Amino acid sequence: MIKIVLIGAGNVAFHLCQAFKNSENTKVVQIFNRTLENIAVFPESIDKTNSYTKLKEADIYIIAVSDDSVSMVSENFLLNNKLVVHTSGSVAMKTLSDKNRKGVFYPLQSFSKSRKVDFSEIPICVEASEEKDLELLKVLGKSISEKVVVINSEERKRLHLSAVIVNNFVNYLYQVGSNLLEEEALSFDLLKPLIKETALKIESLPPFEAQTGPAKRNDKKTIEKHLHLLKDSPYKKLYAEMTEAILREYSILDNN
Amino acid sequence: MIKIVLIGAGNVAFHLCQAFKNSENTKVVQIFNRTLENIAVFPESIDKTNSYTKLKEADIYIIAVSDDSVSMVSENFLLNNKLVVHTSGSVAMKTLSDKNRKGVFYPLQSFSKSRKVDFSEIPICVEASEEKDLELLKVLGKSISEKVVVINSEERKRLHLSAVIVNNFVNYLYQVGSNLLEEEALSFDLLKPLIKETALKIESLPPFEAQTGPAKRNDKKTIEKHLHLLKDSPYKKLYAEMTEAILREYSILDNN
Repeated sequence: MIKIVLIGAGNVAFHLCQAFKNSENTKVVQIFNRTLENIAVFPESIDKTNSYTKLKEADIYIIAVSDDSVSMVSENFLLNNKLVVHTSGSVAMKTLSDKNRKGVFYPLQSFSKSRKVDFSEIPICVEASEEKDLELLKVLGKSISEKVVVINSEERKRLHLSAVIVNNFVNYLYQVGSNLLEEEALSFDLLKPLIKETALKIESLPPFEAQTGPAKRNDKKTIEKHLHLLKDSPYKKLYAEMTEAILREYSILDNN
Repeated sequence: MIKIVLIGAGNVAFHLCQAFKNSENTKVVQIFNRTLENIAVFPESIDKTNSYTKLKEADIYIIAVSDDSVSMVSENFLLNNKLVVHTSGSVAMKTLSDKNRKGVFYPLQSFSKSRKVDFSEIPICVEASEEKDLELLKVLGKSISEKVVVINSEERKRLHLSAVIVNNFVNYLYQVGSNLLEEEALSFDLLKPLIKETALKIESLPPFEAQTGPAKRNDKKTIEKHLHLLKDSPYKKLYAEMTEAILREYSILDNN
């Protein structure tokens, strides 16, 4: 049984807590947060504290707080030589305080409180400064997910950057589509099946091969029509640049 | 029973043919294509021709060919006063020849031969120059889909433009993510659960509310880190511009 103290009250802490609770091999012995009200929604059976002096004994201390607070929180620890990990995609492991053994336990997913999470599919990226801690993090990862990968801080940076692109930037394009339809009083629902199919397609086909559309086939007539439609729109520049990028991607590769 | 002649051998013709075959209310009586080899994969039971003089009697003639060929194919028809529709998102209805009654039957989805299609969820956008033809197209749409909407040519243009953004541009971002990982020998599989969640999230949450990430929360430190990571990358410009667009989207709306 791996004993865990969770630090933080955000979405990652919330969903990790659920996942550890559902696993037979892990036990969250305590949740720490500066304001106790924020962790009131966590299971009643788990001890809660807002005091660093009252942190319980555990095998792993998981800091699931905002990126900017990771360093400070780890410095505030009164414990020594414990395994203390953070859950952030963009924070280097070395950011953690030298007082304790360091590690990272980064679940590569976007969490919101309102949506259920199936951890079994979520890649858990682990890193540790000591070999035996890495082994423990692997076991911890496998207790909630089928996909545990060892990723160092450099690789994790790259992974987080890519995640921003396929999650945040993609969602922004959904917004653009939604806004363009709204201007004509058309429902965004019309695009939902297409959005779903686009995302599911790349599970079996690499995105380079899945690419279709006017830019991919260099269909200048349709591109011109679209730019004309967007002539007074703030999205004209975005359309032109994305189109140019796709044209470049394929022409560059054709020339090789 | 609605009798249909299908013109074309591409993905749309292929999947429409399957859908009509599975419906009790429709019958594809013939498939036309200039080269018969290309329609050899279509069901054996359906008559095939490559001659305009041999087109059969039908209630609807569906032209499912490339955008550029719609006009020419409809001009080549020897029949008169029939209901002739195309399936294109970006071609105006008036592009069809005046010899016949005009209409549009546009299934809003991205089709590939290798992927199965569930038509019941796909929005079918219909338009016709005559009221009774519009009614027939609605019935035809309902025979294969639960979602049939009347959309005029102007609206359809806008819809197609938005579809390009949430399908082609989004898939391009998947490529960018994949390429960035490849440079570090990281597997694109790591991003697939995130891609899926991002697409599924907007089924219950408007994309404006679903937006997260460094640009949304104006996290300059992370943005700088990412731009630094991309300093020699062709994707640096794209990252900067998407970030700027998201910042603008939210700051503009905050100022209102």
